[in-house]
Amino acid sequence: MATAHKGVELPTLNGRGLRIGIVRARWNPTVIDALNAGCRAALLESGVAESDIVEVMVPGSYELPFAASVLLNSADAKVDAVVCLGCLIKGETMHFEYICEAVTQGIMRLNLDSGKPVMFGVLACLTMDQALARAGLGDSPSKHNHGIDWGKGAVEMALLRTQFPRSSK
Amino acid sequence: MATAHKGVELPTLNGRGLRIGIVRARWNPTVIDALNAGCRAALLESGVAESDIVEVMVPGSYELPFAASVLLNSADAKVDAVVCLGCLIKGETMHFEYICEAVTQGIMRLNLDSGKPVMFGVLACLTMDQALARAGLGDSPSKHNHGIDWGKGAVEMALLRTQFPRSSK
Amino acid sequence: MATAHKGVELPTLNGRGLRIGIVRARWNPTVIDALNAGCRAALLESGVAESDIVEVMVPGSYELPFAASVLLNSADAKVDAVVCLGCLIKGETMHFEYICEAVTQGIMRLNLDSGKPVMFGVLACLTMDQALARAGLGDSPSKHNHGIDWGKGAVEMALLRTQFPRSSK
Amino acid sequence: MATAHKGVELPTLNGRGLRIGIVRARWNPTVIDALNAGCRAALLESGVAESDIVEVMVPGSYELPFAASVLLNSADAKVDAVVCLGCLIKGETMHFEYICEAVTQGIMRLNLDSGKPVMFGVLACLTMDQALARAGLGDSPSKHNHGIDWGKGAVEMALLRTQFPRSSK
Amino acid sequence: MATAHKGVELPTLNGRGLRIGIVRARWNPTVIDALNAGCRAALLESGVAESDIVEVMVPGSYELPFAASVLLNSADAKVDAVVCLGCLIKGETMHFEYICEAVTQGIMRLNLDSGKPVMFGVLACLTMDQALARAGLGDSPSKHNHGIDWGKGAVEMALLRTQFPRSSK
Repeated sequence: MATAHKGVELPTLNGRGLRIGIVRARWNPTVIDALNAGCRAALLESGVAESDIVEVMVPGSYELPFAASVLLNSADAKVDAVVCLGCLIKGETMHFEYICEAVTQGIMRLNLDSGKPVMFGVLACLTMDQALARAGLGDSPSKHNHGIDWGKGAVEMALLRTQFPRSSK
Repeated sequence: MATAHKGVELPTLNGRGLRIGIVRARWNPTVIDALNAGCRAALLESGVAESDIVEVMVPGSYELPFAASVLLNSADAKVDAVVCLGCLIKGETMHFEYICEAVTQGIMRLNLDSGKPVMFGVLACLTMDQALARAGLGDSPSKHNHGIDWGKGAVEMALLRTQFPRSSK
Repeated sequence: MATAHKGVELPTLNGRGLRIGIVRARWNPTVIDALNAGCRAALLESGVAESDIVEVMVPGSYELPFAASVLLNSADAKVDAVVCLGCLIKGETMHFEYICEAVTQGIMRLNLDSGKPVMFGVLACLTMDQALARAGLGDSPSKHNHGIDWGKGAVEMALLRTQFPRSSK
Repeated sequence: MATAHKGVELPTLNGRGLRIGIVRARWNPTVIDALNAGCRAALLESGVAESDIVEVMVPGSYELPFAASVLLNSADAKVDAVVCLGCLIKGETMHFEYICEAVTQGIMRLNLDSGKPVMFGVLACLTMDQALARAGLGDSPSKHNHGIDWGKGAVEMALLRTQFPRSSK
Repeated sequence: MATAHKGVELPTLNGRGLRIGIVRARWNPTVIDALNAGCRAALLESGVAESDIVEVMVPGSYELPFAASVLLNSADAKVDAVVCLGCLIKGETMHFEYICEAVTQGIMRLNLDSGKPVMFGVLACLTMDQALARAGLGDSPSKHNHGIDWGKGAVEMALLRTQFPRSSK
């Protein structure tokens, strides 16, 4: 057990040798850059080598599942897990609702299809202030960079897969 | 027939020899610990050996389907059923709605893909009080630990599968 | 053409020789027992033999698709169609919404995956009175036991499949 | 280019030789009969022979995807496209919402699974007046029989498939 | 890095030799024609040859995923990516909600099934004014033609696939 967040004990993770993909959306760079920095810091702290992080950019959050699937299916990328970083904020049309739903379900599908963990690091916020607080930015007293959690989660889930290898049937 | 809950007769279950996976989220430990204790007690009461329970931790509820699929596909875990324990509580963003939907659908998919039962033991609550009551905690007069039901359900559904074995086609 | 309900002519069905599975939830037994009785009566009236009805119990509606898939994949059950009977009633949490959605989609998936009809006999009600009326119980002047319709529907759809056999490709 | 509807130019379609399935729900016969008549008229006007239309009845809209899949997989029906005709009207329970969603997604899945077009001819209305107007009935000044559009759409999409044949891989 | 939109730096893309499909709905031609023009301009600016753009028309947005799948599976079309252009506007029935959801999920599925990017260029608007502004039309000071973004996105995602080729397993 290592650090505690909101009273929850977190495990000490040894991510040495793991290769982790990060797929990040280009829009809302202030938020995404902070999430990405938090995620990378968590990966490095968990023992993942900087050279074992493969970062890919996509235009918007809807493209996250496709790009994640490209990494998961690539012999070059050789990733053990992927973190998808996006930031969706409610606008005046219904674009937000349908994109959120499709991305959440698309990333879930990748988890079950690929047998490798794909972290859902997508903020679905009603205001920019909510997004900033969840990237550890802005004035909210409860601000916290969720990118840290998603980075640690990717390592933890990749290690789970090592602990219970897939049976060859 | 054995115990009755809210006037519903429950069957007597013989789970001897069954191996059951429990995948539990780390967040909201008060609630999840209680659900887990209820679930384990129900499994033991149904004849499942303590050594036949494989427990795995994940960061949050979104990771439950992935971890369940790891257990279902593992030759080491050899589980006959999995119980997913999570607790989602409505926050100020739309995170709750999309996670709830994806996890509910993801666990349903595992049931149909794997041919083994995966119990949906995820609370989708609007308040912490609602969650506590459904874990048998707090002051609500109607409090009841649903972990008990999910543990018994896992045994019942695993036995159903034994009763009607999959045809080899 | 045979009986008429709300001015709609219904076909005369000959279900002799068909084997029909009924998967029913244990919760809300008053409602489910009535739906089950209506369904069975309709099956018998359509010529299905009592010995050709395979009835299976599950804890709650979320388990309906899994149990239906067990019957559909069983060489012993040999069913030509399955009727899923459940009764979901809106509570104070969001449990109702997510269960309803996953069960409706799960049963739809079984229809398309298995090539055999799986009737969606699940009530999604806001009050217990609504559920009672749809099971032919209570005081509502428009009460009607939908279990009858689902039983007849299972026979009709199983016969459609006989009429247009699957091409062997 | 041929007729214009609301200022949109429609293509002239040559459906000679195409075989089209129509799957129609039994409920709300006034609405469905009109939609069906509009659909058939459009098919004939597009050059589809009456003997090349295969019509099948199902109890309700939830059964539409199953019956469509039966036609799509049948060597006897040999259909190039299917039109699903249904009419769902909001009632007092949540039945409407979950059926609508599952049917819309189920028909979409058939389009992608089968490689043949399956037209979504299902009205999702809040009132019967809305349904009548979309079947070209009632008093609404903007009434229009959408069955016509769905018939033409089936021919147009079946011809698209002929234009870009599936590569044999 | 090339042009900047809302302060976000965009990459310079070299789309020479890529073949891009555009599937566009016929309804709301004012909006769709503008989106299509923006998309084509972006493709040409990115180096895609005009002769490498394959444009296909469908009746409505629900048909977009089917037509996209036809292009993706065609040895003649040989597309590296597809852009789906549609415009859905909330009407008085629930048609809008269910179509939006099915199209968004259908296009997501194509991304994951085909291994080729399929851009979600479908507006889900509550008013026609919202749609016009997102096609770069009308009086809104913040109007912007999203077709440009979707064209560039298609090239960017097709190049990503080239960068990480699918491993042959």
